[in-house]
Amino acid sequence: MQERGFTLWFTGLSGAGKSTLANLVSEELRRRGRCVEILDGDEVRTNLSKGLGFSKEDRDTNIKRIGYVCKLLSRNGVVAISAAISPYREIRDYNRQQIGNFIEVYVECSIEELTRRDVKGLYKKALAGEIQNFTGISDPYEPPPKPEIALDSCRQSVEDSVRAILGYLERAGWIQAEAPATVRPRSGTA
Amino acid sequence: MQERGFTLWFTGLSGAGKSTLANLVSEELRRRGRCVEILDGDEVRTNLSKGLGFSKEDRDTNIKRIGYVCKLLSRNGVVAISAAISPYREIRDYNRQQIGNFIEVYVECSIEELTRRDVKGLYKKALAGEIQNFTGISDPYEPPPKPEIALDSCRQSVEDSVRAILGYLERAGWIQAEAPATVRPRSGTA
Repeated sequence: MQERGFTLWFTGLSGAGKSTLANLVSEELRRRGRCVEILDGDEVRTNLSKGLGFSKEDRDTNIKRIGYVCKLLSRNGVVAISAAISPYREIRDYNRQQIGNFIEVYVECSIEELTRRDVKGLYKKALAGEIQNFTGISDPYEPPPKPEIALDSCRQSVEDSVRAILGYLERAGWIQAEAPATVRPRSGTA
Repeated sequence: MQERGFTLWFTGLSGAGKSTLANLVSEELRRRGRCVEILDGDEVRTNLSKGLGFSKEDRDTNIKRIGYVCKLLSRNGVVAISAAISPYREIRDYNRQQIGNFIEVYVECSIEELTRRDVKGLYKKALAGEIQNFTGISDPYEPPPKPEIALDSCRQSVEDSVRAILGYLERAGWIQAEAPATVRPRSGTA
């Protein structure tokens, strides 16, 4: 029978590790036979939201569109994963309500640490004023007060975070727990 | 095992019967256990394309967005059904290429007959110049040269059209043919 779809909604600052975690979790879920789609910020901006900018209104429209597509996917048995920053609480909550099967994953990391790492060099540019409306620097980020899963990506390893997500999904009954590996007796030896 | 998803892409003038057929086909496919999503013009304009108008560019963007969502759905086993006018051949062909599992259903009906019926009163308004960019009256419609399924909704009944679509899907292997109803002997009588 068809398994129950759901939406795994990552939220957090740029560079906190949303896409990395989304990709690793999706690999593992696919390995376990689930259908998975990642709605990644950039791909969505090309395919659904060309022309939208980074004002609050445009960000909200973009996040609602991602939510709409996640809804269509997850009500058809697919695991939909959003890895966009989604800075505003109200719009995440709107999507939660629209989608129903909604699991919020807050990937937290301090601005100080993200600026120190600055993997893509974006924080430097944002601090120099070269990027406008940069979440966490010149644009607000509203952390979720009650995410289903909260990760501290400054201190937690990627592996631990993936384990935490899968553990939650298993305990909450969204995915089946994997049976521990056992050695089966060969036929004839029993 | 998961069944193969596909996109059923209706195209045709306003009032030709795309939505009616899409709904009836979707009911029957759901009855047969398939997951189905209809991407209807109005719902999409609210959820994915707010702000877009009816210029060629905006229509193209709208139809590409529908195509993108159909792609995500159908590659995950869902039957995605688009019931938008989609007047331009080039964009339908673009979607065909992007999606792969693409079945084009041309719902043909003459302008004369549609104007005579004018179920929603739109043709009258369009002919009076009260609606701009109305496909078939003041905006172009490019019929598909080689649709997988061509229906003449002026002459064919809705039931016949639905049968034609399901028949095609069965013959082409997209859905399983239903076994004809048979009377099984009760156990013990054989």
